[in-house]
Formats: sequence, C-alpha cells, structure tokens
Amino acid sequence: MRLLLTLQYLGTNYAGWQLQTNAVAVQQVVEEALAKMFGVAIRIEGASRTDSGVHAAAQRAHADVPFQIAPRGVVRGLNDLLPSDIRVLAAEYVADSFQCRHAAKRKTYVYRIWNDEVFDVFADPTHAHMPQPLDVDAMQAAADPLIGKHDFAAFTVASPEVSSTIRTIESVRVERSGQVVSIFVTADGFLRYMIRRIAGSLMEVGRGKLDRDALRRSLEPEFEPARWTAPAKGLTLLEIEY
Amino acid sequence: MRLLLTLQYLGTNYAGWQLQTNAVAVQQVVEEALAKMFGVAIRIEGASRTDSGVHAAAQRAHADVPFQIAPRGVVRGLNDLLPSDIRVLAAEYVADSFQCRHAAKRKTYVYRIWNDEVFDVFADPTHAHMPQPLDVDAMQAAADPLIGKHDFAAFTVASPEVSSTIRTIESVRVERSGQVVSIFVTADGFLRYMIRRIAGSLMEVGRGKLDRDALRRSLEPEFEPARWTAPAKGLTLLEIEY
Repeated sequence: MRLLLTLQYLGTNYAGWQLQTNAVAVQQVVEEALAKMFGVAIRIEGASRTDSGVHAAAQRAHADVPFQIAPRGVVRGLNDLLPSDIRVLAAEYVADSFQCRHAAKRKTYVYRIWNDEVFDVFADPTHAHMPQPLDVDAMQAAADPLIGKHDFAAFTVASPEVSSTIRTIESVRVERSGQVVSIFVTADGFLRYMIRRIAGSLMEVGRGKLDRDALRRSLEPEFEPARWTAPAKGLTLLEIEY
Repeated sequence: MRLLLTLQYLGTNYAGWQLQTNAVAVQQVVEEALAKMFGVAIRIEGASRTDSGVHAAAQRAHADVPFQIAPRGVVRGLNDLLPSDIRVLAAEYVADSFQCRHAAKRKTYVYRIWNDEVFDVFADPTHAHMPQPLDVDAMQAAADPLIGKHDFAAFTVASPEVSSTIRTIESVRVERSGQVVSIFVTADGFLRYMIRRIAGSLMEVGRGKLDRDALRRSLEPEFEPARWTAPAKGLTLLEIEY
C-alpha cells in the first residue's frame, strides 16, 4: 500500500532532498527510518527535489510499504527513529496510483532575507543576509510581471534537464515584517534554482543595483539570464497543494 | 578605556557564557576576537552568566581596551572575526567605573516551549518541547505569587554561592501564540537555574501534574524545592536594563 508523508526538515546539514553518492540526503535518512520500521528496504519519492541547504515546512513524499501501520503509529515511530532536524508531521494511505510529484497542483516557497546590518543569530540558519536597505515596493513592482504563464529559462541552469521551461506563477508577494523581507512564490512547479534566481534578482532591484524592469526583460525570447542566485539557506518549501 | 558591548548568541554550541576549562565558552570566543582586534589579551566581564546551551538576544559585557576604535568599527571588526552564531549588536564607551553586572537594574528572560505533539524543526534549537497541552491560564495563576520580593532558594541549587537568595521579580507573563508558550520573567537578578526551575514547575502545572499553589508554597520558609529544571535550550536572555 502507498503511504503519503508530510515532512519537515531543516536543510542545514543535508545535501538536499535527493539521494547523493557522497553526502547525506534527507530522502536517504527517511528511507533508513522506514526500513527500520517495516523491516525491508523502502524507496520514497519526494514531491519537490529541494537543493542542498534548502528547508521544508511541509514536503510531501510517498512510499510503498509492505503492511499497514496506523498513521499515528507511523508518525510517532518515524519521529522516534529520525534525527531532530527531520520530522514527520502527518501520514496517510493513498491510492496506489497516486504520484506525489505529478499530482501536485501548486507549490509555495518562501525566500527570507534578514535585512539589517548585523545578521541576527536566530535568523541566520533560515535566512539570507542583506545589510543594505531593501525597497520592498520596488521588489514587488519588479516581481509582478512574473505572474502568469511564461518561459522561465532565464531563471534556471543553462541546460535544464526538463521537457519544458514554461511554468505558471500564480502569485509573488514581497513583504516586510521588521528586519525580515519575505518573498512568497506560488506556482504549478519550479525549475532548478528558479526561486533562488528570482530572489537574487529581486534583492538586486531592492538595493537599487538593478532596475524594476529587469525581471520582465528576462521573460522575453532573447532573455537576459538572471545572474544572481540567492543562497540556499534562505529558501523554505512552505506548502504543496493537491 | 572601558567598552560596553551588546551581544547576541545562539547557545547551542557553547558551554555557556563563562570561561570553562574543558569546553568553549562564549566569553572566550569574544575575548579572542578582541585580542585580535586590539593586539593584546583582553578580559571581558558579562552581565549574566548564562548556562551551557542558553541563548542571548542582548547580553551585555564590558572590557578595558588599550585604545579607542569608533563603536561602528568595533561592531564591524568583531563581527568579521566572530563565528556566525555570536554577533555584536552595539558598542559604546562607558565610564571606567561602570560594571555591567552590578549596574544592571533589571533583566528579562524568556522561556519558550513548543507545545504540540511533533516538535517543529525550526523551533527545536530555541524551544523546549511539551507534547501534552499546556493550560496557560493555570500557569499564569501559579506564577503570580512569585511577583515581588521573595526568597527563591527553592528554585536554585542546594548550595548557591551567593550572599543572598532573595530576589525581586517584577513580572511573570505566560503567553500562548499558536503552538508556542512563552514565559517572560523580569527581575532585579536571577539565581542559578532559577528561571529553568520556575519554567519546569510551570510546565508541570500546565499539564496538570502539579497544583496551581505549588510555586507559592516553594516561597515559604519550609519550602518544597522545585524538582523540574526545564532544558537550557528553551531559555533566552532578552534584555538587560540600566
């Protein structure tokens, strides 16, 4: 039967979600806990392949397990086996045909920036640092043209291993709360580095190094590739909706 | 001349504020940075001797330095030399007679508890975990008798190395915000473990294991010693007022 897990993790100490040959990935740690619980090797598939250092408030992953343990028991049992920087928030049984990656309707990420001269020690693990004041209104104005269905090739790697670089962004919201500037992005899917390159460009706009029209220009056929990739630790996968 | 620093630190990786023979203390790391900046060995004195694992949002410490560097330069220079989990927020020159520990009028600490079955990975480094629901009103009622001038011997070690165990608590506030229960305590000073034992007792009241009158009884001459010391990582030194 197929088990769907909702997972939370602090990405600081992991080489991202996906299995790596030379570093510990979140997927591997969860698979090892599942293997201990069910007594057989179990492979899981995550809904988002978060990069090294990226956090998740609610990642989803499915796995085929050999027998049924009550969801509450799965949550408790896995949390006993997992390190404290990875938690299982919920478990449920789904149809055998359910694919957590393909079934996802939309995903929301947040990119957080500590915008003050001294980088707060409590924010440090989950924020980027920008000492120069950020103009949030300019960032929002620069982000608005991204909303809708566009070719986001300018915001990913030079040779993305995907069939299409077209994605639909539903909303981009830039907000300030005290010294924290947050960029919330909701889309039907994301390309590799897409949010970190959007965030990097928006930070350049925010401190006046890039004009407000720059991101719009990157959507044109003869695009200017985004040159700034914001650091991984500022990014958190917030929600995956089905 | 005497320099007064305002410092922030994540206590997770330190053996507390004060110099230890066999583990790295925050004081030592700051002294090493000062020595590099001023070219001579410099001793600093902290206003609060936070225990191993306890955090500080605004610790104060003074040091005698051989020559004057502008406060802004001290902040920038030290932050370049310090690890990212210790930050200097501010620096100012004070009278040579100023003693940051003795001059403190009041101090405020917060004790934070993640009150939900699964311990949030983002809260984990700076909160204690209590899976059972906490009754915040019962905790506040139990805490109220602590306000005022009392002998807090029940809330410290058996042989406290202090001249008096009498302290004056100005306020104790127990608040819930979502899954986080915070206990704010302001006093003219604190004994060793005092807040962690108050917090530990209040958590017992909150989950119904101890009656609301228990903390009041601990203030009586024939006191019941507090038996629960809440974990260090939930405690943060918030403010020292002069």
